Amino acid sequence: MSSQRISRPVCILGLGLIGGSLLRDLVAAGETAYGYNRSPDAVEEAKKEGFDVTSSLSDVLSRAQGDDALVVVATPMGAVGAMLDAIAEFAPDCGFTDVVSVKGAVLEAVRERGMAERYVGSHPMAGTAESGWAASHEGLFRGAAWVIGFDLACGDAGSGAAGAGTAAGAGASGAGAGAAAGASGAGAAEVPASWVELWKDVATLAGVVHAEVVPARVGVHDAAVARISHMPHVLAEALAVVGDQGGALAHSLAAGSFRDATRVAGSEPALVRAMCETNAAAVVDVLDEVIELLNEARESLSRPEPDIAELADAGHSARIRFKAREASGARGGESVSPVPVSSRPVLRVRPGEGEWVQVLIQAESLGARVEVF
Amino acid sequence: MSSQRISRPVCILGLGLIGGSLLRDLVAAGETAYGYNRSPDAVEEAKKEGFDVTSSLSDVLSRAQGDDALVVVATPMGAVGAMLDAIAEFAPDCGFTDVVSVKGAVLEAVRERGMAERYVGSHPMAGTAESGWAASHEGLFRGAAWVIGFDLACGDAGSGAAGAGTAAGAGASGAGAGAAAGASGAGAAEVPASWVELWKDVATLAGVVHAEVVPARVGVHDAAVARISHMPHVLAEALAVVGDQGGALAHSLAAGSFRDATRVAGSEPALVRAMCETNAAAVVDVLDEVIELLNEARESLSRPEPDIAELADAGHSARIRFKAREASGARGGESVSPVPVSSRPVLRVRPGEGEWVQVLIQAESLGARVEVF
Repeated sequence: MSSQRISRPVCILGLGLIGGSLLRDLVAAGETAYGYNRSPDAVEEAKKEGFDVTSSLSDVLSRAQGDDALVVVATPMGAVGAMLDAIAEFAPDCGFTDVVSVKGAVLEAVRERGMAERYVGSHPMAGTAESGWAASHEGLFRGAAWVIGFDLACGDAGSGAAGAGTAAGAGASGAGAGAAAGASGAGAAEVPASWVELWKDVATLAGVVHAEVVPARVGVHDAAVARISHMPHVLAEALAVVGDQGGALAHSLAAGSFRDATRVAGSEPALVRAMCETNAAAVVDVLDEVIELLNEARESLSRPEPDIAELADAGHSARIRFKAREASGARGGESVSPVPVSSRPVLRVRPGEGEWVQVLIQAESLGARVEVF
Repeated sequence: MSSQRISRPVCILGLGLIGGSLLRDLVAAGETAYGYNRSPDAVEEAKKEGFDVTSSLSDVLSRAQGDDALVVVATPMGAVGAMLDAIAEFAPDCGFTDVVSVKGAVLEAVRERGMAERYVGSHPMAGTAESGWAASHEGLFRGAAWVIGFDLACGDAGSGAAGAGTAAGAGASGAGAGAAAGASGAGAAEVPASWVELWKDVATLAGVVHAEVVPARVGVHDAAVARISHMPHVLAEALAVVGDQGGALAHSLAAGSFRDATRVAGSEPALVRAMCETNAAAVVDVLDEVIELLNEARESLSRPEPDIAELADAGHSARIRFKAREASGARGGESVSPVPVSSRPVLRVRPGEGEWVQVLIQAESLGARVEVF
C-alpha cells in the first residue's frame, strides 16, 4: 500500500516536529524532498544532517514552482496567511496542502485568497507536546491517522466554511447528520483534474510515511478533534489548576491518575491557545456537553444518598468502546508486531472516478482509512 | 529507615490488591503476618503460594486477639462496618488501622462504635484500576505516600468528623487555613499510651513496605484526594463520554492525549462510585471549582476574539509546579536509581513526645514524609 510514489517533489515550509519528521521520512523513503525554515539555526542543524534545506522562503518556493512540487505548509496557524501569500507570489502554479491541527480556519484563509482549487487540507494526528526540528524524528506518523479533506469535491465551496468559527460550530452540532446530508446531496461536484491528482499525491504522501488516510471534511474534522484532542488539553489544564489549589499535600499524594491526566498541561500554552482559539466554536460546543455532564454529577452527588452511577457507568462503557475499536491495531504504540495490523476499517477508492466522493463520505462516518488504487 | 520492626504480628482483613500486596511485602520482609479473605478461591490461591490465610473471619480475629496483633482492614468501604463489628466481637483488645481511600466515612463508623482510641486510619496512595489477590504483588507501595491520620491526638474527637460528608466538605474548603488553626489550637490532646504505640506501629508498617509516611487528618486528607485522585476519575469519565459522542471518526482520530486522559475511566464503575460517593462533599467542592474554570473558559472562547490564555497559562504553571515537586524523586516509577531518593521533604518525629503533634501538622501542610525515631 505504500509502494506508490509521489508524482512530484515535495517542498516543506516549516521544519518543526511535524514538518521536520515528514522531511526525514520522505528522504528515507527515497522521495525528492526539500524544505524551508525561518530559523537559520534549525536550517544549519538540518544541513549538517545532509538535508536539502534553506532559510529563504522565496528561493524554496521559486524552486517548487520550477519543478512543480507539492508544497506542504507545516507552520503554526499564525504563520499560515503569510505562507499562502508567499505561495501565491512565488509558486503560483503549485498544488499545496497543510498539516495544521484545525482545518476550518485554514480553508477560510485559502478561500479568501482564491486558492481553493489547488489546495487539499490535511492533518496528521501525531505529536503535540514537543516541538522544533530537534524533536523531529523518523517514524512519527507510523500507524497514525492522516486526515485529508475533500470539501471541494462536495460542491460546498461557498457554504461549508463561510467563517471558520461558524463552520466548525455547524460541523460540531451536526457531525453525524451533516455527513448523511452531504452524502445524499448533490454528490461529487465538478473538480479540476489537477485537483484530483493533488488529492492522490497527498494521500500517497501519507502512505509513504506509513500513516493511514482518513478522509474528513473541514467541519466534521474540527468537531471531532475538539472532542478527542482539544478537550483533553482543556480538562488537563483545569485538573492541574484544582490539584495545585490543594497545595503541597495534594501534590505529595498525587499518583498515576493525576500525573497521566495532567500530562498535556505540560504543553506550551501557546500551542493550546492555537488549537482551541482557532477552533473555538467546536470547542465551546463540546465544553457545553462536558459542563452539563459535570453539573449532573454534581447534582446527584449532592443528594442525601450521593450517587455518581450514571456518569461512572457511561464513562466506563464509552472507554470500553474506545478500547475495543483500538484493540489489536497498530495504534497506541503498544504493538510489537513487525507487521502492524490496523484497527481501522478500510475502504478502497479510485480518486476522480465513479462514486468516489460517496466512498470518502462513508469512510468519514466510519473513521475508516482509505486505500487509493 | 525501614530497619525498624513492627512490635506485633499483623492480621490483614481482605486480600485484594492492597491487602494482598501488603501481606506479600510483610512476609518478604520477615514480619509475622497472616490474613483473611471472604472468597475461598483467593484463600486457596494464597495458600498455594505458602501464605498463612483463612476464610474464617472469627478464626483470624480470635488469633489476632490471642497474639495482640495489629489488625488491618483492607476491604472496600462497603464492608468496613461489618469488619469493625467483627473486630469488636472477636478481637476486642486489638489496635487496628484501615487502608480505605476515604477517611471521614471510616472514622465516623469507628466513632459510632466507640472504637476510636484503638484506631489509626491510613491510606496508601497506590493502585486503583486492577483488583483482587491475582493483581497483588510485592513492591506495590515502594515510594508511594502512605497517609496516616492523627485526629485523636488533636483533641477534636467530637468535631472533626461529625458526619463524613460534612467533615470532608469543611476540610475541603479549609485545607490550608484549617491546618493552621489546628496547629495554633490546643495542640496535642491526651491520648492513651497504647494509641501512641499503635500509631508508631502503623508508621513502621508503612516503612517496612518502603512507603513514605505522610501524616494528614481526616478532613484534610479527604479534600486532597478529592482533588488528585477522585477528580481525575470524574473528568476521565466525562471525557470518555464526549469522545464517544463523536462516534467512530472521533475514536479513529484519537491519539495519546485522549487515551491517557481516559485511562482511569477503565476502572470498574463500582470503584469510582465507592470513592466519590463516600467522599461526596469534598468531591462536590472540587467539582464546583472545575465547573467554574470551564465556564470561564467557555465564556472567553465565545468572544469575537476567542481566548483561552488564562486557563492555558494557569494550567501550565500548575503542572510545572507539580513536576518540580515530583522531580528527582522516587515517585512516578521512572527512576532507575537503585537507591531511590524521595522528593518529599522529611521531618523527624518521636511519637508521644514533646511537640510531636505540631510536627505532624507541619508535615501535613508541607506534604512531607515523617521519619519516626
